[in-house]
Parts: sequence; structure tokens; C-alpha cells
Amino acid sequence: MSTTAVNGAPTTSTTTGTRAAAGQDDARAAVEVVEATGAPAARPARTRPSGVVAATAPDLAADPEDLRRVMDGRWPQVRDRVRTGVPAEYAQPTDHLSTEEHRRLTTERITALAAGGEQRYGFTSRVGGGDDTGAQTINFEMLGLVDLSLTIKAGVQWGLFAGSIQALGSERHHQRYLPAALDMSLPGCFAMTETGHGSDVASLRTTATYDPATQEFVVHTPDASARKDYIGNAANDARLAVVFAQLETLGEQHGVHALLVPVRDEDGRPLPGVTLTDCGRKAGLNGVDNGRIVFDGVRVPREDLLDRYASVAPDGTYSSPMANRNARFFTTLGALVKGRVCIGGGALAASRTALAIAVGHAERRRQFPRGGAAGEEVTLLDYRTHQRRLLPLLATTVVLGFAQDDLTAELHRVQNPVLLGLDVDGPAQRRLEALAAGMKATTTWHATAAIQTAREACGGAGYLSENRLPQLKADTDVFTTFEGDNTVLMQLLAKALLTAYRDSFGDLDRLGMARAATGALVETLAARTQARAIVDRITEVAPGRDGTEELLDRSWQLRTLAWRERRVLETLATRMRRRTKAGDDAFTIANDVQDHMVRAAQVHMARVVAESGVRGIETATDPRTKALLGRALDLHVLADLEADRAWLLERGGLTPARSKALTGVLNDLCAQLRPHASTLVAGFGIPDGWLGAAVLR
Amino acid sequence: MSTTAVNGAPTTSTTTGTRAAAGQDDARAAVEVVEATGAPAARPARTRPSGVVAATAPDLAADPEDLRRVMDGRWPQVRDRVRTGVPAEYAQPTDHLSTEEHRRLTTERITALAAGGEQRYGFTSRVGGGDDTGAQTINFEMLGLVDLSLTIKAGVQWGLFAGSIQALGSERHHQRYLPAALDMSLPGCFAMTETGHGSDVASLRTTATYDPATQEFVVHTPDASARKDYIGNAANDARLAVVFAQLETLGEQHGVHALLVPVRDEDGRPLPGVTLTDCGRKAGLNGVDNGRIVFDGVRVPREDLLDRYASVAPDGTYSSPMANRNARFFTTLGALVKGRVCIGGGALAASRTALAIAVGHAERRRQFPRGGAAGEEVTLLDYRTHQRRLLPLLATTVVLGFAQDDLTAELHRVQNPVLLGLDVDGPAQRRLEALAAGMKATTTWHATAAIQTAREACGGAGYLSENRLPQLKADTDVFTTFEGDNTVLMQLLAKALLTAYRDSFGDLDRLGMARAATGALVETLAARTQARAIVDRITEVAPGRDGTEELLDRSWQLRTLAWRERRVLETLATRMRRRTKAGDDAFTIANDVQDHMVRAAQVHMARVVAESGVRGIETATDPRTKALLGRALDLHVLADLEADRAWLLERGGLTPARSKALTGVLNDLCAQLRPHASTLVAGFGIPDGWLGAAVLR
Repeated sequence: MSTTAVNGAPTTSTTTGTRAAAGQDDARAAVEVVEATGAPAARPARTRPSGVVAATAPDLAADPEDLRRVMDGRWPQVRDRVRTGVPAEYAQPTDHLSTEEHRRLTTERITALAAGGEQRYGFTSRVGGGDDTGAQTINFEMLGLVDLSLTIKAGVQWGLFAGSIQALGSERHHQRYLPAALDMSLPGCFAMTETGHGSDVASLRTTATYDPATQEFVVHTPDASARKDYIGNAANDARLAVVFAQLETLGEQHGVHALLVPVRDEDGRPLPGVTLTDCGRKAGLNGVDNGRIVFDGVRVPREDLLDRYASVAPDGTYSSPMANRNARFFTTLGALVKGRVCIGGGALAASRTALAIAVGHAERRRQFPRGGAAGEEVTLLDYRTHQRRLLPLLATTVVLGFAQDDLTAELHRVQNPVLLGLDVDGPAQRRLEALAAGMKATTTWHATAAIQTAREACGGAGYLSENRLPQLKADTDVFTTFEGDNTVLMQLLAKALLTAYRDSFGDLDRLGMARAATGALVETLAARTQARAIVDRITEVAPGRDGTEELLDRSWQLRTLAWRERRVLETLATRMRRRTKAGDDAFTIANDVQDHMVRAAQVHMARVVAESGVRGIETATDPRTKALLGRALDLHVLADLEADRAWLLERGGLTPARSKALTGVLNDLCAQLRPHASTLVAGFGIPDGWLGAAVLR
Repeated sequence: MSTTAVNGAPTTSTTTGTRAAAGQDDARAAVEVVEATGAPAARPARTRPSGVVAATAPDLAADPEDLRRVMDGRWPQVRDRVRTGVPAEYAQPTDHLSTEEHRRLTTERITALAAGGEQRYGFTSRVGGGDDTGAQTINFEMLGLVDLSLTIKAGVQWGLFAGSIQALGSERHHQRYLPAALDMSLPGCFAMTETGHGSDVASLRTTATYDPATQEFVVHTPDASARKDYIGNAANDARLAVVFAQLETLGEQHGVHALLVPVRDEDGRPLPGVTLTDCGRKAGLNGVDNGRIVFDGVRVPREDLLDRYASVAPDGTYSSPMANRNARFFTTLGALVKGRVCIGGGALAASRTALAIAVGHAERRRQFPRGGAAGEEVTLLDYRTHQRRLLPLLATTVVLGFAQDDLTAELHRVQNPVLLGLDVDGPAQRRLEALAAGMKATTTWHATAAIQTAREACGGAGYLSENRLPQLKADTDVFTTFEGDNTVLMQLLAKALLTAYRDSFGDLDRLGMARAATGALVETLAARTQARAIVDRITEVAPGRDGTEELLDRSWQLRTLAWRERRVLETLATRMRRRTKAGDDAFTIANDVQDHMVRAAQVHMARVVAESGVRGIETATDPRTKALLGRALDLHVLADLEADRAWLLERGGLTPARSKALTGVLNDLCAQLRPHASTLVAGFGIPDGWLGAAVLR
């Protein structure tokens, strides 16, 4: 069996096949390598490959402006407009404000923002919009650099509330509501989540029952668990709500639909039958007024059902262009994919700010004299542990920037036609949803880790509000939860991967065939043509190399990521098939492989993100910019593989000798990137004055 | 070399030696195991060892009360006094309060607490104290379950301020200041950290220059980096400060000493020459008023030098019972070890609360129907990913409780005689300091991870202040930083381990001898007689076993932890010796192995903590209590080894087959402990009403 297990291991499966014979048995090959290189467990000094990293070290002294241009990606003019248009004081900490003060300030700021007009990018020109989905997303991301409460409140108003009217409503809803929603004269909210149901939207319990006698829907909260909860804008500002409810007409259930329900009058008083309460103080984002809504038989006109995908005739007859109820439900939810893309961008922005502060502090702060009491004190960033804490996170933030730009471009490609009134491209939309789910989880988990580490790396200074890190941490902490809990999203992505796998091969029994072709298959899920073409070129021409040198070979890195992805998905499919054959029930099987599913999604995203990094590097023309980004990608990929080297070792993807060498290579990469850490930060293009941390003044 | 690498690997080094021949070559052995068992990479289903866990499953249905009694440890009556004495409303969230309101509330509460008298435990009976260091520490830990601002303010006043007067002052200081410090009529602060220097206390720049003409010290802040910073109680309350400064007399420098400097008058106005400013809002702990102090030639009488370890005669002659300046410095700092032990206890308390809330929520909240839309909805804690997120952290919290109790007992053994006026036991004190440093880092890193995970596991509810997790997270986030930055503390511990290693063998060249005996050697550092005796008994009688079964064998677990510790320390010493011989300078060497040092300290602590777990289990008499704690210890140890299995695989400490099986065993352990999660929480003994989370009502 160990022979089978090793086929296709990245150490041996170059596309040219020249080394195909070298590693039919992973464990035995490991022995050979260990014996051949003499790499000893007790002599790590000898395996330190600093020579390798140094020998292949190109000139990394990139021009910060050139780097920023490359990292700005596809919508540089949108980024520049925010850079010049948003006042620097928006970046000042606000966590000393009371909840009321902070909400008031945020409402003031969003009103000012509305006057600027940039919220219009992502809406149809028929209501004064800019017909540019990508620009809207990048605009949101850039706002995330200054004020996250403002960013999220903007996301609630224009992304979720107005965005769902545009995506799920028809022209009459657009004309009637969007102009006021856009200029903030109609504040609204997006009432999906309930106290009892968040991730499981299909099980929402709020009802919308059609009454043909009055041609109205009756919106009702049947019990406490059906209360709408955590709803942004609900506690104070919202006057109109997009409410998700179980639609019933003529005694028949049709599943979850969205409809417009007024919740407050012009003077901000709750309307009859609507009970609004306040979620109160939160960990962060206290500029956003989250609240709870209970409906007691509230009546709304038939026309206020958002009817792009389903409508109810005056007599109560239900009709939909989509016959399949499930398909309709998922299309309805899928229209909201932009929100997930935006949250990923916001998370990335916060990571950039946090690391800019932590790197800036580590460049200034000195501690402990070098070589005895009389020596010069050492800058924090010269310490190895400090480099190991910050630089891999910095590298990942750089690479994720390219991946987020690619995702935004894909969102734009798929959704902008829909914005322009064209039909949804079903398969492309499903691929986009899976990718957006994976990227949202990836960027928000990264933000949680990066900001936490940045806080700790700044010591006591990182704990003071004046240095922004406490609020960055608190504001972003919910990002892993809202717009889809990350663990649930990753299972959603894994299901899509399994479906793609099954669709292409039908019978999961045909493992031999599957093994041969999964690489291409998995690829079909997130067709990213540009990146893929570059990657294919790299992996084709790269020569096979031995020893630690190969760790820095891009072809080896990419093949290893692809091989890992294939292996994890393959074993997942096999496990599920076996359990199904053994007669286990669906819940038991799904629960038993739940961690495996999350893992499959993670390793898929690791490959996708790295390929975006490769694509990003290609957009650079200056060789030093290319080289610096290349080293950042090395560090990003190898830090991931180092964290996962147990799995690789278990399956022959790394020999013990190379695995041990990995740590040394990472240390050396950190040392090599250390003088350029500030340049990488400059690549984020955060304007002077926006960082707003006292410790950097 | 691979042969050398494997000698002593825990898979083969039973004390009986029966299996010594089986694994001379780790990689080859791995091949054999893979081939013999047929455990295939692509068939994880077959390696699922649920049978093993189930077959060895004892009755885990422990009585919660009995469990609590065991987990209460050595000072149960102190715990009970806090449980019955502190009002439940102290546990309610306070993060909606303004900084001013929160500080006022905390000052009110500490005044009320002072009236209760429990702050007196750790002071000498000559000033009305209880002569009981251990009780003081446990009292602090229990307070951490209710109000962390109050806990830290109490720590500042009675631990740092009054505690340093007791530890570093002489009888006249005790009589003059301690009664008022204890009853809060004299609020004080502990002014050590400066803007430019925190971890590097020896480089502090505040000066205290003796003026024989007036028999006064002149306390002065020479520049901005010498400003005292982050000082608790300094912004508002403190009237007297224990100031750490470079002592100079008769033109000679004597290093850092502590002296008493009044900073405010009776009415709370700053005294002449003292500038007090406010650190402002922080991430958390906003009930504690942290501030900054600048001294402009402030004069204090000669008598106010805290003179236990050094004094200055009227004519300016410096004298000390300790001739060595370094020894004096470290003895001075060492007297403050209690603070680190207390912070560890507070971190543990916060972890307990957070996990109690998250487990309680996961037992109540249901999401997604089992087996199709009509099925009963599934409790969160029945999901595998949810179990994997929460239960290992719960198990670690249980085990750390025993380790913290052991540390408290050791603190009491070493420091209580000093409290009673006896001399410091130098070697015991140094061991205690190293252990306290390691435990502080271990428990606070754990708290950061556990509380973050608890927040995420509660989803949106975890983000609302009413569920306490935001404040728990924010309050404890600085624990990894203050009372010694964790990364620095772990290096301190590693240095102590290396010193013990060197002291016993002198010449690091004699590796053969070292290898033979390091186990015992490392042990000398933290002599924990009771735990050691039990561990020795277990590791002696355990038989060698094959396959996954051995993973649950306590002897194998303990031998693996000890072997890992020995290997990491040995390779660290070897690397440093080589680099020294090669002529590298001390800074370069130390920096190059910095991550290795932190790692050596971590694996040392892992072994020490597990041994405390073994000791704790022994204190149970009911077999079900013993069995439940045993399973918790299994989960704790195996989760650590799973996270570290790359290192073990690289060095032959695990075969690939056993490594892969580990994940399955962990899943099964989680499933087995799941029905008893609430019992383990009950073992924490958090009174009804203290949890205070809305979601649990």
C-alpha cells in the first residue's frame, strides 16, 4: 500500500517524468535521502541551509512606489480616490467613546460618505450607479484601512440592504427604493439571522403568509428563537428592513424569501407590530447599532416581495422562473456573494494596518544591548523570534492581496453582467460562491491571527488604544463569524469540491481514473485562467532538484500544494464512499469527516492563493520588485508547509531531512526579508497619517 | 547518523529494554510499520482506532462535586471563602462603562474588598497579615473568575506595591506603610517599566542619586525614554510609588534599586517635581488607571530606600549583604516572583470562565437538522469540529489547574519562610523563578487561545458584551505581555535549563554522558518530588505496546514528553557549543537559537504540566473521577503531540502510521469526553450566577 500512497508525491512527480522512478516508496526514499545526505537529527547546525538562500538571493531592494503600483492591482484609481478623499482623522481610535457617541459619529460619517458618491459604484446606472461591481468592492476594502465601524455600517446600508434590493428585487423596487437608500435618506437593514438560526438559513422561522383578501403578506415572529438578531442598523437607524421569511401562500410552503418591511416611521419611531431592541455593547464595531426585531402580524403589500426569482400573483398563485425550490433558495443566497468578498477585503485591510504598526514599532523600538551592557541596543525586528512572528504574516498579507484582487476580478466578471441586467451564469456563479466562501474564511482567519500577533509584538504599547491595535482586534474579531461562519463556509467549499469531483467522474469507485486526473478536475472549480497559464508554464520548465535547494523552487512549491490538495480531497471522497457503502447514515458520515472537509477546503485555498501570488508577481516589471515579491511568496508558502509538515512527512511529501531543513530556510528567508520589511509595508499604500498610532509618531 | 538520531526514541526506550532492538533506524522502522500494518495513506478509515479508545473506556460518569473537590487542590477553604464572599454582580460585564465610570467602580470594589480582609493572607502577622503566601495566590486566582479589573487592581496594590515593600523593605518600612497599604488608605503603585525599557530591567534609566549633604536621594527622569510607563494606579489613585532606579552614591553606580517616592498628596494632587499623565483607554482592564510618571529631581529621605538587600549609610557608603552586583539584582527581582504566579492563576480563571460559557452555549444551541429537514436539530457540541475546538482546550485547562496548584504549593514552600523572616533558599528560589516564568507563559498563552476559541465557538453571541467573552478576551490579552513578556520569560527558563545542564556536566563536549543522564538532570531544575515519584512508578511498570493502543498508555505519553524535552535541550546545547567554538559572537549565537530556546522551554513545561496532571489524578479516590481526569489528561497530552507530530516524525518519535492514527484517537477521545464536558466544567467550581452570560440564562 505504501507504494500506492506515494504515487504522485510532489518530490517525484515532475511533469517531464524524469524523476518518476526515484521515489516509488516514500518512506524508503526518505531513508535513502537521510542516509545519502547524512542530515543528522542531532546536528541541526549542519543542515542550516543559509548558503542556499543566500546563494540564490537576488537584489530585493525594490522601489516602494513601484511595489505599491503592482500591489494596487486592477482598480488603482478607486484606491487613490479613497486615499485622497477620506480624512486622516477617520483612522483615529474611537474605542474610548460611549456606545451612543460612537454610533452618532458613525452615522455622521456615513452621511458625509454618501455625499461623496463612491457608494454608487456597484449599482445600476438606471438609479445613478456606476455599473462597476469591482470598484465597489475595492472601495469597501480601502475604507477598511481607516474606520471599521464606518466600513461595516456602509456594508450594511449599501452592501446588504441596498445590495439585496438590487440583487433580489425588480426594476420597480430599484426605482422606488435605491435612490434614497444610496443617499442615506432611507436607512435600512438586512434581517436574515435569527436568535435560533444563523448558519442554517433554510431553517429560519419568521413567516410571511400571503392573504389574498387584502393582497398583503403577514410577517410574523412565531416564537423567541425566530427573533431577528444581531441586525446591523436595527437598534437605531433602520426604517426599512429586507426580511427573510418562510413564504406561505394558499396553504403551501415555498421556503425562504426576502421582502421589504418598514420598521420605523420618518421620525424613527417603531411602527405598529414591530418591536425593536438593542444588542447593546459589543466587543467592537460599536459604531454600528445592532439590534433585534420581533414582528407581530405586520402587513406589507404584495408588491414588496423582492421578486426577481419568485412572485405571488394577486390571487395567491406562486410562480418562479426556477422550478427547483433548492435551486431558487441557493440562487437567492448566491446573489449576496458580494458581501463575503467585501468582508475578506476588509479583513485584509485591517491586517495591513496592524502589521504596518507592528513592523513600524519593531523598526523603532530597541531592547537589550548587543554584546554586553555597553553595546548598542538591538532593534526588535533584528531578533529572530520577532522576525518569525511578524514576517511570515506580512508575506501572507502581501500574497492574499493578489488573491483578493483576483477574487474581486472574478466577482466583477460574473456579477457585473447581472448588475447590467443579464442572466446569471449558473456554473460561474457557483464557482464564484465557493471561491468567495474560501477566501472569506482564509482572509478573516488570517486577520485574527495577524492582528493578535501584531498586538503581542508591540507589548504594552499594543494594549493602549492610542496605538489602534486594540480596536483593530476588537472590530475584526467577528469577521470570522458574520457573513457566514468560517467553519461552515469551509464545509460549503469542500462540498463544492466534492461535487466537482463527483460530477466529472460519476462513480467514485473509479479511483484510478480519478487519481490520474484530479489535478485538472479540482482546477475546474475555480477556473482562474490567467494564473493557471503562468503556473503551468512554471511547473513544466522547472528542473528536478535535490536537497533543500528545491524548497525555493517555485515549481516544487506549486506541485507540492497541488499534490496535497489532490490527496486530501481524494481521501475525503474515499472515506465518504466507504462509509456510505457500509450503510452509515448521512449525518454520522458528514460529522465524522467534518474536520477532513474543513481541511480539504483549506488546502484548496492554499493552492489557489499561491497561484494568485504567482500571477501577481508576473504583473511586476522591475526585477527587484519581482524578486522581493518572489521572496515574500517563498516565505508565505514555506511557512504554510512548515506548519503542515507532519502531514507531508506522513505521506512522503517531505523527507525528514528536508522537513528539518525547512525551519532553517524559513529563518534565513526572514533574515533576508528583514531589511525590506518596511518596503513591503509601503506596498500596502497606506497614506501618511492614516496609521494614527501614537507609537509611530 | 539516523541511527544516532533514534537512540532513546520513546517508541523503543522502555526502561525494561524489551523493545530496544526494534527501532534502531527510525525511517526504516517506519517503512516496516507501514508495510506490516498495511496502514495506507489513502485509507484513513481503516486506521481509525475507535475500537482502541472504546475498548479501554472506563466509566467516566464522575460526580461533579467529587471532581470539584479534587480540582480545588490544596487551599479549598480559600476558594470557598471567595465563592461565598464575592457578590455575583461583580461578574457582570462592565465594558459599556466609560473609562472614568469603570475606574470609579473598581476603586469602590477594591475598597469593599479591603474591608473583607482577605488581601492580608500573604503578609506577615506582625502587620496583621495571615502568614500564608499560598492562600494569597489562590485568593487572587479566584477573584479572576469575577472581575479582572478588580483582580489586577488588587494585584497592583497588594501584590506589586505592598508586596514589594514587604519583600524588599525592612521592618520599619513594613510597620510604617503596610497597614495603610493593606486597608487601602494608602493607594500605591509599582513604577518599574519605562517607555524605553520593559523586559530589560537592568537598563532602566531613571536615576536615584544620593546627596550626603541632605541625606536624601534625588530621583530623576533623564529623558523621554526613562519615563515610567503603563504603571497601574498611577493615573488616578496612587499616592506612594515603589520606584526602580539606577542608584548612585559617592559617584559610583550600583545598579537598579527600589525606593519609596510619594507622588500625590492626601488630596490626590501631584507633588512638586512629579508629572503624572494618563495612558488612557486600553483594550481591556479599564477599571485600572494606568499612567506615566516623570520625576524632576524629586528628593526622598535616605530611609526610604527599600533596604533588605542593600543600604546607604548617612555618609553615602553603600553596603549590601550580597557582594555580587548581579546576584543582588536578580535577588531583588526574584522577590517579585509571586506576581508571575498570580498572573498565571488569573489567566487560568479567565480560561475557566470562557470555556464554561462556550461549553454551556454549545450544550444549548442547536443548528441544522439531523438527517434531512424534518430531523431534530443537532446540538453544537455534537459536531466534531466543535468538539475538536473546545474539548482539548477544556482538557488543558483542567490539567493546568493541577500544575498551577503545584506551582502555588512550591511558591508557598519557598517564599513563606521568607515571609516569616527566614533567609531565601537560593537554589530553591532560582528553580521557582524558572518554573514560575514557564508557567506564566504557558497559562497566559493558553488563556489567549482558549478565550479566542470560546468567543468564536459562540458565534455572534460571543461578540456581544452581555455574554462576557469580549471583556474576558480584552482583559486578559495583556497577560502574555505584562509581568514579563512570554517570549522573554521562556528564554529565561531556557537559560536556566541550559545552566542546570552545564552545571551538572561542566563540559558540554561530554555528550555521551550527558545523553545518558539528561533526564534526571533536567529534572533537578524543577524538583517536584510528589509528581516525580508517581511518574517514576508509572513509567517503570508500563509494558511496551504496539500500534495505536500505546498512544493511550500513560507511560508512553510521559516517556515521549521526557524524551522530546531531552532531545530539544541537547540539540540546543550542541548548537550553542558549536557556534561558540566556531568563534561566533554571543549575540549572534543567542539570536540564532532564539526560537530553539523558546521551544526548549515549551517542551520542558509540557512535561512538567503533564506530570502535575498525573499527580492531580492520584489525589482522586473515586474511580470514575480518576477515570474522567485520566481521559482529560490523555486528550491534553495527545493534542499537544498531534500539533507537534512533525518534529516527532522527523526524529523517529512517532512512526507515520501511528502519527496518522493520532488524529483518529483524538477524535474518539473528544467523542468519549463529550457527554462529560459539563461535569469537567462543574469541576471548576464556578458558583451559579457568576458566569453572568446572557446566553446561558
